[in-house]
Formats: sequence, structure tokens, C-alpha cells
Amino acid sequence: MSTTAFLSALSRIYPPDRLLTRPAQLIAYESDALTSFRARPQAVVIPVTQDEVVETVRLCNEHEVPFVARGSGTSLSGGSLPVENGIVIALNRLNRILHLDPEQRFAVVEAGVINLQISQAAAPYGLYYAPDPSSQPICTIGGNVAFNSGGAHCLKYGMTSNHILSMKVVLADGEVVRFGSRSLEGVGVGPDLVGLFVGSEGLFGIALEMTVRLLPRPESFRTVMAAYRDLESAGNAVASVVGAGLLPAAIEIMDTLAMRAAEAAVGAGYPQEARAMLIVELDGEAEQVDREFEELVDLIQASGAEQVIVAQTDEERARIWQGRKGAFSAVGRLSPDYVVQDGVVPRGRLGQALAEIDRLGREYGLDVANVFHAGDGNLHPLILFDGSVEGALERAEELAGKILKMCVDLGGSLTGEHGIGVEKRDYMSYMFSPVDLEVMAELRQVMDPKGLANPGKMLPTAGH
Amino acid sequence: MSTTAFLSALSRIYPPDRLLTRPAQLIAYESDALTSFRARPQAVVIPVTQDEVVETVRLCNEHEVPFVARGSGTSLSGGSLPVENGIVIALNRLNRILHLDPEQRFAVVEAGVINLQISQAAAPYGLYYAPDPSSQPICTIGGNVAFNSGGAHCLKYGMTSNHILSMKVVLADGEVVRFGSRSLEGVGVGPDLVGLFVGSEGLFGIALEMTVRLLPRPESFRTVMAAYRDLESAGNAVASVVGAGLLPAAIEIMDTLAMRAAEAAVGAGYPQEARAMLIVELDGEAEQVDREFEELVDLIQASGAEQVIVAQTDEERARIWQGRKGAFSAVGRLSPDYVVQDGVVPRGRLGQALAEIDRLGREYGLDVANVFHAGDGNLHPLILFDGSVEGALERAEELAGKILKMCVDLGGSLTGEHGIGVEKRDYMSYMFSPVDLEVMAELRQVMDPKGLANPGKMLPTAGH
Repeated sequence: MSTTAFLSALSRIYPPDRLLTRPAQLIAYESDALTSFRARPQAVVIPVTQDEVVETVRLCNEHEVPFVARGSGTSLSGGSLPVENGIVIALNRLNRILHLDPEQRFAVVEAGVINLQISQAAAPYGLYYAPDPSSQPICTIGGNVAFNSGGAHCLKYGMTSNHILSMKVVLADGEVVRFGSRSLEGVGVGPDLVGLFVGSEGLFGIALEMTVRLLPRPESFRTVMAAYRDLESAGNAVASVVGAGLLPAAIEIMDTLAMRAAEAAVGAGYPQEARAMLIVELDGEAEQVDREFEELVDLIQASGAEQVIVAQTDEERARIWQGRKGAFSAVGRLSPDYVVQDGVVPRGRLGQALAEIDRLGREYGLDVANVFHAGDGNLHPLILFDGSVEGALERAEELAGKILKMCVDLGGSLTGEHGIGVEKRDYMSYMFSPVDLEVMAELRQVMDPKGLANPGKMLPTAGH
Repeated sequence: MSTTAFLSALSRIYPPDRLLTRPAQLIAYESDALTSFRARPQAVVIPVTQDEVVETVRLCNEHEVPFVARGSGTSLSGGSLPVENGIVIALNRLNRILHLDPEQRFAVVEAGVINLQISQAAAPYGLYYAPDPSSQPICTIGGNVAFNSGGAHCLKYGMTSNHILSMKVVLADGEVVRFGSRSLEGVGVGPDLVGLFVGSEGLFGIALEMTVRLLPRPESFRTVMAAYRDLESAGNAVASVVGAGLLPAAIEIMDTLAMRAAEAAVGAGYPQEARAMLIVELDGEAEQVDREFEELVDLIQASGAEQVIVAQTDEERARIWQGRKGAFSAVGRLSPDYVVQDGVVPRGRLGQALAEIDRLGREYGLDVANVFHAGDGNLHPLILFDGSVEGALERAEELAGKILKMCVDLGGSLTGEHGIGVEKRDYMSYMFSPVDLEVMAELRQVMDPKGLANPGKMLPTAGH
């Protein structure tokens, strides 16, 4: 590969302000939200049209230059970490909402559209886009698709993959394909290629535009917070709510450390003396929500809650969620550095998993704050450490690895919604057999024979 | 390939009563529910264990013998049509329910388990398996997975792919892999390989066992039939029900011909003088269903229904569905032969599609009976003909092809739930671009490099 020829070809596509090569320009792209990993690309390009993306991918294919697509860089698993000598294709300006059909309830959006902007565009029609990662005010739909992102309300509504009807994709060799069907009814022919692409962490190519499902905004919400004296009681309350047949929109738990951080950051009104807090939200048609709400409050009171707080207004509800969704960044107030995991365990084994995290934290002498999607069994242990102390990062990562293996041992998974990225790649063989991994690698080979699309992520073998 | 060596190797796996090679034994396997296609395999094997299936596939791979997995042979698209000189692997006796977990709400079942038997096994726990193809008393879960089967109630609950949590699969080269995660919470790592496999029409290998999701049986049902003077009014009623925000479990329409046939067969109590009949079923929690029911009846009465009949008992409800689900076979009473299509159009274009089907039927001088999942826009035109008349089958198939192309032109799809099979294979290029088809063929190549698994189905290029 001739770097000069390649850069010169790029400069025929991009004006200088959208082709970044100077170190001072590149530094902002060296890492994503997993800041402990860094790599410097040879260039960053900023396309504003889909054609520019396609031309860029074709050039990369021709010159055999690896490329990494990047939205807002919010990946917690290093999913958009650049490749040394590769390029970053920054998609933030590929951000048009191309079409919104309120009657058929779908929107066609480009990869760089911000998650929350879809709901804002749909709001005048009483519609919204359901998957709600905590980063939804900044993360892009392209990144959501790459990592099959979830969020608190995915308990009831499902992950990103349940909301993508079709997509237009440029594969790593520059071919443009359409997966799925734009109409709600046109799905169902052959293998689910949309499902194959969603969650493939950028290893198959770049999604240019997607047709997303819009849902009618629920008529009514009821949000309840309950304080408990320990995490186990909060976990048992979850079991009793789900066991009673209620399907809340969200069931979240936070522990003391996380609550303290969130409270300091946004003043969410969380009870400060509790050891664990449960947040349950019901949504739906008003009369049904009211009826379920009565049952929910009875169940929570019977579960040994020390305090029950019900959001009385939309503002109170918003503040509860602001605290929960801001909890990760708020934890930054408690500690100079942290790593966060998002392992999953079967819901029935939450108590066991939390006890083991607590034990491991003490063994390593590290504080662990827990914020998690309890209804899904999706844990988010935040391991706090001071990166200026020699070896502290390595110890935190070792602890994180033990927690991940425990999740797999309990019948769960390495990731609920953050993806494998670079961070958990080496744990894949703990969860999957060599044959399983080989099938994934072979599929990658079909989509990207030269291994240029986001190499080094997800698959243990995808680096070459 | 040496046929003798291959058969001799098979006979080391199977006793004579489970290795069929005599013409009189093979004839029952020559076609499936698409009876206009026939092919004679060289042998049929009847495994009773998963290991026997794996060994058989490995033998086929070694000897390069094509194989077709078959459950109950109910495919309407020729999905289990044998390959000449290939073998049929009949999975009906691989029919154990291996595990049922009422608390975590899943069942682990082998490929040959009958769809309805899963719900029967789950009934004592108040649970059921949701996807309900009309053939559910006889079709197997393996076939449902291969074709991503739907059914009347998939409007609310989704297709087979929404209910398969994980699967154990033998790929065409004899490798055994697991896709998905057995626990409800362990999904979400990487590309959706379960989704890739579900709907792949047997081209990637054979599913040996799957973990299926079980749902709590709805507390209450309300089933309403309404008679209309024309199909268009019935179609408009669907639009008004959906537009009002109701999400019924099922919305079906039948025309005069289909009603007459079903009535003659089961005495479902359908109004005989109507030109179109709408069936709407609500399910869920009793109070909510009662409330929605009032709204539904108001909407239907405002939609110009000539007669509204509400099922008053479980028996009346069962009879309505028996008529609907038996409609295809009942149509056999009206005509010596028929072909059925299952094209899909956007719900808003149902009226236009039905008018065009009517026009095409008159142009071809053929009666077309319509039974369809109106809520999904999934049409089921049954084209009646007399196979003993020279050229009649060809004319019926030509008409069917025009209907399919119309569905694609209207923004829909070639199939809603019956699959492509052999029947619609040649229409794939009308719906997909050459690049799209190439990606599918390449995926097939990964899973089945020698092209031995159900060759000739779905993909225009899968025959070689």
C-alpha cells in the first residue's frame, strides 16, 4: 500500500476541512469512551453523503487500508477504537432523517443521526423510537446498530435489533446491499440478514441508512423508587414483581455508591441512607397502568422496602431517569478512573452474582459500584481505581475479567448491550466453542474477505 | 459417489425399518403439501437420536450426497421436496421435549416435536408457545424454524424467529454448533446467528434442538366476526381498528368462496350471504380486553358491517378458528386443485391488492378464494383449477406469479410465512438485487460449502 497515493485519492473525495491528517486533529479520535485504549489513525474523513462513504470504502478496499466507522464515540467496549495506519470514517455529519411515515410508523435515517433526535422528530405524531441507551442524547443510530444497543426500557420493548426494519449497507468490499424490507410487512424472506448485521460491531461493513420502527408513545407512565437495606432484598423484589406477571417498561437497581454519585450530580431525590434502590416504571394505557400500579405498590411494600417514592409529575419522573442515566458519568466524581462491565446473568441468579461481585471487590481491595438493568439480569459493575497508581488499571481489568467469567459460568453472557469490542475479545473463547467462533469468522470472511472493516474487534481471529 | 457404499454405510446406522429404499416406501416422501412438484429420493432415513442425524449428515458430506430434512411435510412452497438421488432425513421421531422450565419460561425441544404439543406440554403451567400456523396440529418445530413460520396470532406475538432463544444445529459439513443462549438473558453477543438460521429453509444445515420461549396464556379472549358487502369495506375496517391504536391478537379476512368452503367443512357459523368476513380477536388481561372489546365493536359497527357476531363461549371461539384454519383444505371441496400464494403488501394497500387480484382472476378465467392475515397485509389467494385440464396448472401458476410481482411492486414481499422453497425461487431476482442474492449465496457457501443441504430451494443459485 502506498500511503501517499491513498491519501491523495482521499483528497479527491474530501475538501481539506473534512480530511484530517494533522496530529492535533487526530488526537480527538484516538479513543472512544473506553479511554484506557488508544490508537492513532493515519487519517479521519468526514463524509456528508452516502456516496462519499461508499467511495471511501472502495478506496480502502483497493489500497487495503483498514477502516473504522465512528459515530459519537460513546462505545464502552472500544468498538470504535482506530486501527494504527488505518482511517476513521466519522459519520456524525451523515445525519439526515430522510423520511418519516407516521401512518406506517417508520423513519428512514442515516447512520449519523442521534438516537434521541429520531424520537424528537417523531414526537409531533405521538410516536417515538424505543431503544434508549443511557447515552441517547449523543449516541448515533449507526453505533446502536453495530452494537445492538439496549437501554432501561428494552426490558419491555426489546433491543435495537427488534426495531430495525431494513438497512442499506456498504460491505467492506464496496458493494452496496439492502437487507430487510422498508415496509413493516415485507420482512420474512429467507435468513434474517438485518439480524445478522445488527450487533456485528462494524466487522461486515458500514450501515449507511436504516428504516427504524416507531411506536406510539405510551399514554401514561408510573415510576416508583423503593429503598432497601441490601441488594438481595431489592433483587427479591424484582423476582416477585416479574413472578406476579407484571411486565414493567423498566426495572433498575442501583447500589449505595452509584446512588451517591448520581445524587451528587443531578439531585435526583434518591434516598441517601439506603443500601440499594429499585426503580420500576410502568407504561401503557392509563387505566391499565393505574391498575398495575396498585398491584406493584402492594408487591413492593410486601418485599420489605424501607421507603417507597412515587414520581408525582413528569418532572419528577424525568429527574429519576436523569440520575439513573447519568450514573456512569457521575461515578467519575467518586474516583479518578473506572472500568465498567455489562455481563448478564439469568434473572434468578442476580442475588448470587451480586454477592460474588461484592466478594471479589473485597478480595481485590477495589470499590465496585453497581447500576443494572435488573429485569434483564444485565449487570453494570463499575470498578473504581486510580490510574495514577502503578498496576491499578491491570488489577481493575483482572477483576473485571473474573466478573465476566462468573456471568458465563452462571449461564449468562459477556455482554448485554455494550458489545465485545476490543475489551472483551479475549473472553469470547470462554463463552463460545472453537466451532462457534469459526462459523463467526467464516461469516466475517464472506462480508469482508480482506479483513478491513473494524479489524481487531469482537472476534479473536478478526485481527488478521 | 458410490451409491452402494453410501447405502451400506447408512445401514450401519439404521435398522431396516428406519432406512427406506423400496419404491413403495419412498412414494410417500416424493412431495410435500405443494403436490404439483415431485421427486424421488434414493433413500429415506428415520433417525431417533440427534447423534444419528449428525452421523447421517457427516456421511452425506463424505459421499457428497444431497439431503433434505423433513418434518411432517406440510410445506406449501415445496420446502421439503426431495432431491433426485439425494436422501430424505425424516425427523418425525426426533420428537422429545427435553426440558421445560416454567419459571424461566422456556422449553427445549427436538426438531420433530409437533408445534401444538409444545403448548400442550406447557398448558399445566399456564404457558403456551405462541406462533400458530394453521397446520399447528401436525407441523413440526423444525419446519417452523426452517421457514420462520407465522400464523394468525403472529400479528401481536411475532413470527417463529421471535420465539427461538437458541438452537443446536448440525451444519452441512457435519459440524455441530450452538447459536443463541439457553437463558433468556444470555442473548445479544455479536451477530444474530439464530436469526440467520431461522428462515434459511434448510440451506445451512439441520436444527437438532431448539430452546423456545413460552408465554403466559392470556387471561381472556374476545372474538368477533363481522360480515361485509365487499372486501374493500372489510379492509377499511382493519385500517380503522389499527388506526384507533388497538393491537388485536389476530385480524383475518375471508372472502365468499373461502367462507363457503370452510362453512361446508366445519359449520363454523359464518354468515353465508356476506361477500367478506372479518375476524378480530382480542386477548390479554380480562378488564383490558373488556374495555377494548367495547371500542372494537363500536368501530366495527361504524365501519358498515352488515352483521356482527361475538363468540359467547370457548366452543364458539374454537369453531370460528377451526373454520379459518381449515379453510385451505376446505377449499379442496370447491375445486379439484388449487395453488396458494402468500404474498405480502403494506397494510394500507390491501384494498388495491385485492382489487387487482380480482381483476387478474377474471382475466385468467380462474376463481380465486382469499383468506388472509389482514393485520399483517399477508394475502393468501387460493387459485382454483382443474389439473386434469391440459395447461390449467401452468395458467394457474402464471396467475400466481403475476400476483407475487404485484405484491413486490406495491412495496411488499414474495412470502409472509410459507417461504420461497422451490416454488418462488425464480421470483427472488424480482425482489432482490444481484448483489443481495450474491451475499445470500456466499453465506450459504460458508455454512454448506458443497451445497448438499436442501439444494434447489430458496436461492436461485443454490442448486449447484
